[in-house]
Amino acid sequence: MFTPRFLYDFEWFLLPFVSLFIIWYTIDAKAMVSDEKEYIEIAEMMRNEALLFEGTYIILEKILESGPRFAGSPGYTAAVDITQRIMEDLGFDKVWLEPVSVPRWIRGEPEKANIVNSERLGTVPLSVLALGGSVSTPKGGIVSEVIEVQDFEQLREIGEKARGKIAFFNRPMDRRNVNTFAAYSGAVNQRSRGAIEAGRFGAIAVLVRSMTTQIDTYPHTGMMRYDDTVPKIPAAAISTFHADLLSEELLHNPDLNVFLEINAFASSPVINYNVMGELSGYQYPNEIIVVACHLDTWDVSVGAHDNGAGCAQAISAIKLLKDLGLRPKRTVRAVLYANEEFGVSGGREYVQSENRKNEKHIAAMESDRGGFLPLGFTIDSSTEVVDYLQRYSYLFSPLQMHTIVQGYGGVDITPLKEYGTLTIGLLVDSQRYFDIHHSEKDTIDKVNPRELELGTIGMALLAYVLSEEGIPDWLAKDSLSN
Amino acid sequence: MFTPRFLYDFEWFLLPFVSLFIIWYTIDAKAMVSDEKEYIEIAEMMRNEALLFEGTYIILEKILESGPRFAGSPGYTAAVDITQRIMEDLGFDKVWLEPVSVPRWIRGEPEKANIVNSERLGTVPLSVLALGGSVSTPKGGIVSEVIEVQDFEQLREIGEKARGKIAFFNRPMDRRNVNTFAAYSGAVNQRSRGAIEAGRFGAIAVLVRSMTTQIDTYPHTGMMRYDDTVPKIPAAAISTFHADLLSEELLHNPDLNVFLEINAFASSPVINYNVMGELSGYQYPNEIIVVACHLDTWDVSVGAHDNGAGCAQAISAIKLLKDLGLRPKRTVRAVLYANEEFGVSGGREYVQSENRKNEKHIAAMESDRGGFLPLGFTIDSSTEVVDYLQRYSYLFSPLQMHTIVQGYGGVDITPLKEYGTLTIGLLVDSQRYFDIHHSEKDTIDKVNPRELELGTIGMALLAYVLSEEGIPDWLAKDSLSN
Repeated sequence: MFTPRFLYDFEWFLLPFVSLFIIWYTIDAKAMVSDEKEYIEIAEMMRNEALLFEGTYIILEKILESGPRFAGSPGYTAAVDITQRIMEDLGFDKVWLEPVSVPRWIRGEPEKANIVNSERLGTVPLSVLALGGSVSTPKGGIVSEVIEVQDFEQLREIGEKARGKIAFFNRPMDRRNVNTFAAYSGAVNQRSRGAIEAGRFGAIAVLVRSMTTQIDTYPHTGMMRYDDTVPKIPAAAISTFHADLLSEELLHNPDLNVFLEINAFASSPVINYNVMGELSGYQYPNEIIVVACHLDTWDVSVGAHDNGAGCAQAISAIKLLKDLGLRPKRTVRAVLYANEEFGVSGGREYVQSENRKNEKHIAAMESDRGGFLPLGFTIDSSTEVVDYLQRYSYLFSPLQMHTIVQGYGGVDITPLKEYGTLTIGLLVDSQRYFDIHHSEKDTIDKVNPRELELGTIGMALLAYVLSEEGIPDWLAKDSLSN
Repeated sequence: MFTPRFLYDFEWFLLPFVSLFIIWYTIDAKAMVSDEKEYIEIAEMMRNEALLFEGTYIILEKILESGPRFAGSPGYTAAVDITQRIMEDLGFDKVWLEPVSVPRWIRGEPEKANIVNSERLGTVPLSVLALGGSVSTPKGGIVSEVIEVQDFEQLREIGEKARGKIAFFNRPMDRRNVNTFAAYSGAVNQRSRGAIEAGRFGAIAVLVRSMTTQIDTYPHTGMMRYDDTVPKIPAAAISTFHADLLSEELLHNPDLNVFLEINAFASSPVINYNVMGELSGYQYPNEIIVVACHLDTWDVSVGAHDNGAGCAQAISAIKLLKDLGLRPKRTVRAVLYANEEFGVSGGREYVQSENRKNEKHIAAMESDRGGFLPLGFTIDSSTEVVDYLQRYSYLFSPLQMHTIVQGYGGVDITPLKEYGTLTIGLLVDSQRYFDIHHSEKDTIDKVNPRELELGTIGMALLAYVLSEEGIPDWLAKDSLSN
């Protein structure tokens, strides 16, 4: 009989160890396979349940009954009541509020603007919206020449020519980006810092082209900042249609005057609330998986996509676990943050709350890119962590969520990062978001119930897997150091 | 000096052959890399050009000026003129029409339906639309009891109880499918064969729940068939809201009567036209890559998504090649097919035309799932062909088109399959399609210019690559045999 050579060489005393290794490996592999099977079944149950009932849309309808939910406004308080009641009625293990001090800014009488002395067109009304935080114009408004620039570079070249004038920042979002968030990032400094840069050169007000790729007459507001070393000048967004029109008129008549009136003012900070609801973990109740959104909106918008959709998904994701009888090992918590839009107060105060003392936040995921078709997740961590999470891609493929990549987590959950929490963003189709972002167009008719629901399923599924598996220590460290 | 063992064993007479192989391999690899680089640059040029100008939407607006474009209608003829003119104005190398005989069906006076004798509700109007091809009711309509069934199985069980009644097919599309086309396939036999199956058991008319996952009052029409061995009975779609209401009422009152009036009739076939426009191949002008759509719609809909979007994309894809100065090796041809909805006449006559005699159709791709966010392509061929095409996935990743899988090509291009043409379908987000499909809701406000444009880029890019590379013979055979 032929005996293979390696058997002669084999160190027989190793046999028990090898056997043990094989047995351990087999058991482990089987356990993994059985976990995998279980997760696949759970994922299917989630799809069936959620897509059949489309409950997220119904929750969204209820949230939007609040109307606009701007920081410090009665609408925000109404939304706190509504969402607290929803989660209580759904029988979450625990529902509570945590106070957040928020700055208060009031738009006052609607802003107005028009071209004063166009020879071709006469007086032309311009659709504008004061930017969030803007000071008012002098009572009765201002009338001034306008100087158009594309960026801060050009502004600095013009320099003193801006003195006494309205600086008009008119650089469009770059539509060539497939990812509209990249286009937004490339244009939004005009809105956030335009008043500072123009104020340096003595401009008396700022008009900023709305942050959208569509050409229409809707102005889109948003956050702006001042700098204490520079005079504070009023700032407004102008609709893209009117920005193009104004730019065209300035070609014909560079001495054109524009009238602008803003009646906004700041008031004392008030107390708002973060709204929390959770399913408590049966094994590690103090280890938390956060499913996040922000409950506030701009004052001119009911915020169906930004971010009513995210809040409806956060609540609905936990409802889905509960409806399917899935008790999580770790706590899965919906956090509806106060005041993201006007200073991220809710996100900051959440991490500083006394209630966080005995809690360890494993992971936080946020849906704040609109309730559109989900494509996957962006992981705010190292490539090792991304690779690790990609092992679960088999669960997300049936949802057509094929993209698990490095990227941003979310504004409200970013303060958790320094406590070692892995932050994750729901990635969705971004093509339609800036059509409606921060404008009165952000209404529920722009939300498709199925697309919204698919996001809920993705969030619920990842939250559940993370609650079961936790995150290995070496990865947790890794994400911490990122 | 140490000399590695293998050098002693080396057969030195092989050296020239090995050297030649290495040289050939290097040159080939370099050529591939340079092709790859060129394609990447072309893909980027396409994205920049198309996303900046969003020209597909403008073409779509022009097409929709025709109004509904039902087979044989004046609207269809108007659309032929419009699209022919668009392609001529764009300076395509060749634009022409080919006649297609199409059957003619006319809806006549609007159909009407109501519940006659509900004790609870009195007379309740029901939103209905005759199905395409339906015969009329007797003049003045019919009044009859209604028998509700979920499927043909249940109908056969009920059997003779259906005699003299209106058969009401009320099985909803299964919303649990992530892919709504799968849900559609699972429900649409009620619409296409309901009148045949109910006619067998002596039913006098058919009401079919609209093919949509939304609950609203819009009926969705579509194709139906008769069978010469069975009496032809009138058939209408009923809105999902009214289907639910009728079902609920039947629970309370099984003897409920419903009134239905349909005034539709068939007329003599007429001549419509397929509309073609192309960039001629500079090397193999008789080898064709088709970019396809159907120009016709249902009579109640301007068909912004179904399939105006596809036609705008087909034209715009060729415009994009032209605008970028990309002369294709093989001919790239837009084919806007006549009459898909009412019998696929255009697709059938295209392959039989004399003009096809000296042409070889390498590949045909169709966009007929709406102008929504493109996700990739479905390849109606073997896994080998899918694998082969996936080598180009690096070109489609920046478009977020990650899904290149086996699947259906398209209704109009399927007749090309038996001539060995590879057929490919543009895969898009399907969540919103059946909200508007075959109903008056299919209007341009449901189309996002960027999502539409991304589809154009995907189609133009794949058409260009296929025109440059062709398809290897072994693959062509493979796809033929599939």
